[in-house]
Amino acid sequence: MSDINKVVLAYSGGLDTSVIVRWLQDTYKCEVVTFTADIGQGEEVEPARAKAKALGVQEIYIDDLREEYVRDFVYPMFRANAIYEGEYLLGTSIARPLIAKRLIEIANETGADAISHGATGKGNDQVRFELGAYSLKPGIKVIAPWREWDLTSRETLMTYCAERNIPVDFAGKTKKSPYSMDANLLHISYEGGKLEDPFWEPEEDMWRWSVSPEAAPDTPTYIEIGYQKGDPVTLNGEALSPATMLETLNKMGGDNGIGRLDLVENRYVGMKSRGCYETPGGTIMLRAHRAIESITLDREAAHLKDELMPRYAKLIYNGYWFSPERRMLQAAIDESQDFVNGIVRLKLYKGNVVVVGRKSDNSLFDEAIATFEDDAGAYNQKDAEGFIKLNALRLRIAANKGRSQLS
Amino acid sequence: MSDINKVVLAYSGGLDTSVIVRWLQDTYKCEVVTFTADIGQGEEVEPARAKAKALGVQEIYIDDLREEYVRDFVYPMFRANAIYEGEYLLGTSIARPLIAKRLIEIANETGADAISHGATGKGNDQVRFELGAYSLKPGIKVIAPWREWDLTSRETLMTYCAERNIPVDFAGKTKKSPYSMDANLLHISYEGGKLEDPFWEPEEDMWRWSVSPEAAPDTPTYIEIGYQKGDPVTLNGEALSPATMLETLNKMGGDNGIGRLDLVENRYVGMKSRGCYETPGGTIMLRAHRAIESITLDREAAHLKDELMPRYAKLIYNGYWFSPERRMLQAAIDESQDFVNGIVRLKLYKGNVVVVGRKSDNSLFDEAIATFEDDAGAYNQKDAEGFIKLNALRLRIAANKGRSQLS
Amino acid sequence: MSDINKVVLAYSGGLDTSVIVRWLQDTYKCEVVTFTADIGQGEEVEPARAKAKALGVQEIYIDDLREEYVRDFVYPMFRANAIYEGEYLLGTSIARPLIAKRLIEIANETGADAISHGATGKGNDQVRFELGAYSLKPGIKVIAPWREWDLTSRETLMTYCAERNIPVDFAGKTKKSPYSMDANLLHISYEGGKLEDPFWEPEEDMWRWSVSPEAAPDTPTYIEIGYQKGDPVTLNGEALSPATMLETLNKMGGDNGIGRLDLVENRYVGMKSRGCYETPGGTIMLRAHRAIESITLDREAAHLKDELMPRYAKLIYNGYWFSPERRMLQAAIDESQDFVNGIVRLKLYKGNVVVVGRKSDNSLFDEAIATFEDDAGAYNQKDAEGFIKLNALRLRIAANKGRSQLS
Amino acid sequence: MSDINKVVLAYSGGLDTSVIVRWLQDTYKCEVVTFTADIGQGEEVEPARAKAKALGVQEIYIDDLREEYVRDFVYPMFRANAIYEGEYLLGTSIARPLIAKRLIEIANETGADAISHGATGKGNDQVRFELGAYSLKPGIKVIAPWREWDLTSRETLMTYCAERNIPVDFAGKTKKSPYSMDANLLHISYEGGKLEDPFWEPEEDMWRWSVSPEAAPDTPTYIEIGYQKGDPVTLNGEALSPATMLETLNKMGGDNGIGRLDLVENRYVGMKSRGCYETPGGTIMLRAHRAIESITLDREAAHLKDELMPRYAKLIYNGYWFSPERRMLQAAIDESQDFVNGIVRLKLYKGNVVVVGRKSDNSLFDEAIATFEDDAGAYNQKDAEGFIKLNALRLRIAANKGRSQLS
Repeated sequence: MSDINKVVLAYSGGLDTSVIVRWLQDTYKCEVVTFTADIGQGEEVEPARAKAKALGVQEIYIDDLREEYVRDFVYPMFRANAIYEGEYLLGTSIARPLIAKRLIEIANETGADAISHGATGKGNDQVRFELGAYSLKPGIKVIAPWREWDLTSRETLMTYCAERNIPVDFAGKTKKSPYSMDANLLHISYEGGKLEDPFWEPEEDMWRWSVSPEAAPDTPTYIEIGYQKGDPVTLNGEALSPATMLETLNKMGGDNGIGRLDLVENRYVGMKSRGCYETPGGTIMLRAHRAIESITLDREAAHLKDELMPRYAKLIYNGYWFSPERRMLQAAIDESQDFVNGIVRLKLYKGNVVVVGRKSDNSLFDEAIATFEDDAGAYNQKDAEGFIKLNALRLRIAANKGRSQLS
Repeated sequence: MSDINKVVLAYSGGLDTSVIVRWLQDTYKCEVVTFTADIGQGEEVEPARAKAKALGVQEIYIDDLREEYVRDFVYPMFRANAIYEGEYLLGTSIARPLIAKRLIEIANETGADAISHGATGKGNDQVRFELGAYSLKPGIKVIAPWREWDLTSRETLMTYCAERNIPVDFAGKTKKSPYSMDANLLHISYEGGKLEDPFWEPEEDMWRWSVSPEAAPDTPTYIEIGYQKGDPVTLNGEALSPATMLETLNKMGGDNGIGRLDLVENRYVGMKSRGCYETPGGTIMLRAHRAIESITLDREAAHLKDELMPRYAKLIYNGYWFSPERRMLQAAIDESQDFVNGIVRLKLYKGNVVVVGRKSDNSLFDEAIATFEDDAGAYNQKDAEGFIKLNALRLRIAANKGRSQLS
Repeated sequence: MSDINKVVLAYSGGLDTSVIVRWLQDTYKCEVVTFTADIGQGEEVEPARAKAKALGVQEIYIDDLREEYVRDFVYPMFRANAIYEGEYLLGTSIARPLIAKRLIEIANETGADAISHGATGKGNDQVRFELGAYSLKPGIKVIAPWREWDLTSRETLMTYCAERNIPVDFAGKTKKSPYSMDANLLHISYEGGKLEDPFWEPEEDMWRWSVSPEAAPDTPTYIEIGYQKGDPVTLNGEALSPATMLETLNKMGGDNGIGRLDLVENRYVGMKSRGCYETPGGTIMLRAHRAIESITLDREAAHLKDELMPRYAKLIYNGYWFSPERRMLQAAIDESQDFVNGIVRLKLYKGNVVVVGRKSDNSLFDEAIATFEDDAGAYNQKDAEGFIKLNALRLRIAANKGRSQLS
Repeated sequence: MSDINKVVLAYSGGLDTSVIVRWLQDTYKCEVVTFTADIGQGEEVEPARAKAKALGVQEIYIDDLREEYVRDFVYPMFRANAIYEGEYLLGTSIARPLIAKRLIEIANETGADAISHGATGKGNDQVRFELGAYSLKPGIKVIAPWREWDLTSRETLMTYCAERNIPVDFAGKTKKSPYSMDANLLHISYEGGKLEDPFWEPEEDMWRWSVSPEAAPDTPTYIEIGYQKGDPVTLNGEALSPATMLETLNKMGGDNGIGRLDLVENRYVGMKSRGCYETPGGTIMLRAHRAIESITLDREAAHLKDELMPRYAKLIYNGYWFSPERRMLQAAIDESQDFVNGIVRLKLYKGNVVVVGRKSDNSLFDEAIATFEDDAGAYNQKDAEGFIKLNALRLRIAANKGRSQLS
């Protein structure tokens, strides 16, 4: 079993992917290249180097991808106001194509003929990694150990570690969470364990990035976010890079109990799954972006975006970032953002993100026309009669022919 | 100027529509029938009778439409999770078709040849009233005084009252709000005045239905809503009629600072407009309905609903409730709700509506399959490989032919 | 290898499925039940009985499903004006769910625990059969020999026949076509062989159901189709059952060179594929249905149907007939067809289907309003000004704020 | 009645618009600038100069816009495969924004404060002209004489001509058609007269651009169209400019009886209307474009285009070419066309346009994978099992929970 010579592994430095390093070496008799990325998961990535070395890895990649991640993936997605199934901000989904892209780049640089990852055969992440990889390098081989091996219980895994001298403290010093967790700059997620009962409310100490609304300060925090072409560029007047913007908003949001979400979602592989998420900065950015669009975007452009959004969100959820159809939708969305500039003022308070003001040099809000006061002829109310009459014409003809719209 | 013999007026009992009664009598030399509905606006409707009589009206209709309103309009709309422009719960929009329907019924009963309303020529309500009326009775005449008369300032209106002996205390005893307000069981709205500056944050005492999150209780309220075929039918185990359900949720939501919204929306007549809304019960119902759907609705049914929703919401916003296209969408939506049964548990706290549990005999959440633990063969992880391979095939072929998905 | 006791096979009586009978018996040591359906493929189904008996089959089902096929599958689909990828009338796709349904019914009747079919692992039909089967009986096992066995060339297959005493004349007496063909009442299809070069024009004698336009009569045939609730019910004034209607239109269309199609389509499994189709009756029905809708359907209902159609067609193409999302779309479509009644007059001539007249008691075509002559006030041209002004308002505001719509 | 100083009129040189020149001069006491465009209507435009002079016009614009028309309007629209209501190729609709644009340019050059056109108040063209104009110059005034004057019958018009010395032979020497006709390079249209009965078949001599299929040659014409980025650039190997391409295809199509259409359509102003059209070149281009896309476009890109198309077509039909939403859709469509290159081979015969071949260096048709013969491992049929299993998973879970997909 092996025509694989070298494989690039998405390596976290944790126990599971460390086992995978050894398992790949054993099973495929191949060289393993590790790739560890800082995408804002909040853990040091540098320790992965020593661990990889200890496993005999010779080519070790450790990259800080935070700015690229927010600039080229998170921001374009937020231009679309993307939400999956009415609630989920796609925090895991949007990080995967970047990992896939970097795996392929490293495969190209190192002459590897395969990539590998630690995602299970039941989840969405395997799909996102592999669709991304195949789209960028169609001949790449993909090894997904969780779909192949028989180390499917904690015991078999521990036995394997013991037999192969894999230090179990790779599992990390922090108390093991009962949940399957994943984090990047956009969010942290929790799955599994007691969450598998959708009627069970998670205990307070599951949440790691935010305080509860109850524990948040009793006084609100006001902030102002400045937008340019649909992207947040300033916070309270100060220009911030994409990653710094999101980090700062995560902090502010988390401090104010903002961004927790508890839902049951539909996975691409066909089953429903309970997930809990903390997305403090993203929750703020979504409200703020809609607010700046509300005064700067044309009505029909906004409605077209709203109708395309569920489809766009589904593409990202399902792993089709690197696809022609996502690019088409992105082209339409980006075309709409040229004038999405201005300032949004927000109040953060105990879980609430309240838009309290928006202004823009590109505002289409026209007080002269909107006013209930005298508008000096800016709008001719008599026009409304013709507007209604012609919009009603087809309905009147139908009614005249005896059709009833009462059920 | 008049081939109008009798006109049915949507009459609130307030000053403006009282002026309209007199103006119709004067201008069209016609008989006026008044129609006053209780749709949960929170004001007595019975006093309208004496006022109408004082104006010489002989046919006076006063109806309690609250149950019909929630059962036949609000509930069907909530099955769709309808939101206009990402935020607005359509509280004004959905009340209009019912008024239009009742105006036409009364016109039929009284032999009137016209209807009239007090909506301005700049807003959406004129469109909603008139499209509804034309769709149900195509030959009806519509008189919209605000598009016709010259009483466009407070002074001219007052002069008119003085000349015609219209008691100005019709304006009501309560301190005049600086805002244009409208209410029904689903919400109360505020427009105009200082809100016409979208960067101005409304002062606390504008809001009438809810306390601020700051003023809400420090301890959460937990509730359980029971659903049947997509509609809420029990609250904490007790069966409630539609109107009682919404009234109760309004009270609970308002007490917990829930349901305030401040936005800039796009009117059908073409301009942007600032509106503030309180929709306490509706805000709870939207979250709860999505939650019960999350475990009972098929994935693709849910996604189809999400893609159709913006269009459905736009139809209602624009006044097309009584239209073939709304009925088509309703048929699709209702088809999906047969199994949307079960219980949602929610936590209400200082502006937050948090879903903390959902359960259903019709749940499609399958723990045996979703589990990260051993699933005893319920799901074959190896299937995922073929699934990914074939979904990737078109992308790989394209990449093989030299197409890049990097921009 | 076998926990299978009894399997129901979709059996054509041809060589391939006869081999499958034997292969199933050999490989799974199980009893085989054959099911042969007349869905209008134009070949006798009764001979399949003797062949099955010769192979030792004891439970033999031979059904005439033609009326059910057209009434419950073809007609509902044509209400939607369904076309896949702008051209394909879904002639193969729509027959598959019926076969799947019948396989499951027979499995239930005979106590079989599996079904089997002769579709390859590269095509759409396997997906359609199996999705249908799983949706109707989730625990059913599916055996797809072409994905399992090694009889992948003509030689290995013939050797297998020789070894197992399967009479090769099961292949049929008619000269073997160089194409892979499939037929049912809606169409006949051709794939493979020289068609695999998309620049190659098929030779005239490939086509079996229609004469070429060149060979069609020099004088046109006029026909009138009567519709009720969106379905064709009369032809030239005579009531016809669904299957008879389609058979008759196939004959008329084929005689006039109508319904040939040559295209490259995208399969659900990921590759492009060349297909040629003859759909004479369907081609006529599609034009006729659109024509009767053109005078009886409301504009916005028609447009909504047009926007939903590609998605509906894709669902059928991909095999999701028995799915909640197809049922939702069907509910919307059927809701629109109540008044789609009337007569369409068509001219058939050398490949052309020309609509030359449509009339209906439910027509919404209003000569009084449409006329360019004096309309006696039915339509007030001045209404158009207000209609245009308000529709233009958002565009004018944007232009006033300096936005250009020139690229 | 006049704060108008100078008005630019879309002037055909015919009687109606000549009357408008005089009526504008009389009614508004303003200067009239005439603008006559050659957009391929097939009549000389130069004679309009002398007629305008005779009416006292001093600023006369006569432009050949044929290349701009096809390059910047027709070709982008055909990239979308745009069809309105399943049949109409938008031949009138797409010409209007160009006229509007040129009217505004001339208004800017000549300092005019208004534009005027000869479209009636019942049709779509008024909307298209005026939306275009307002979008490009929001403060422009629009004069639509047919909505204002009382010259609504032939007699009053003739009396007006006699009183004002307008030479009636402006009406043209050619025998007056009983139909309202309009032409440009893309099509010629017929409305009114006996066509107002939708069951009446137009007589043969109504049609002007094409012979009937019956009268077309008995031998087919084969052609090859070369595409680049979705636009036709060569015909039978020869590079042709956009206007020349369309002119040539019109000739070839018309000679072969191609492109006639007879339909009832839904106007934006609310009524149904019968129209007959000849679009020979466009009919060919639509089939050819779909054919080249069929081998070069990704499946999901093609399906997204198909789903967006009805909306795009409706925008153009309704007059929203110069709108943000049309530009968004165009951006998505154009994004998809980069690899739509290659050759389509077509057979033209007595009304039929038959695609008989397509080839491209950018073809995604992969014979190695599509073949029914041995594919040497290019495609693993076993992958299909996992693909089907996971796509079926949600359906199986639902069925397991007792849900039936039979109605």
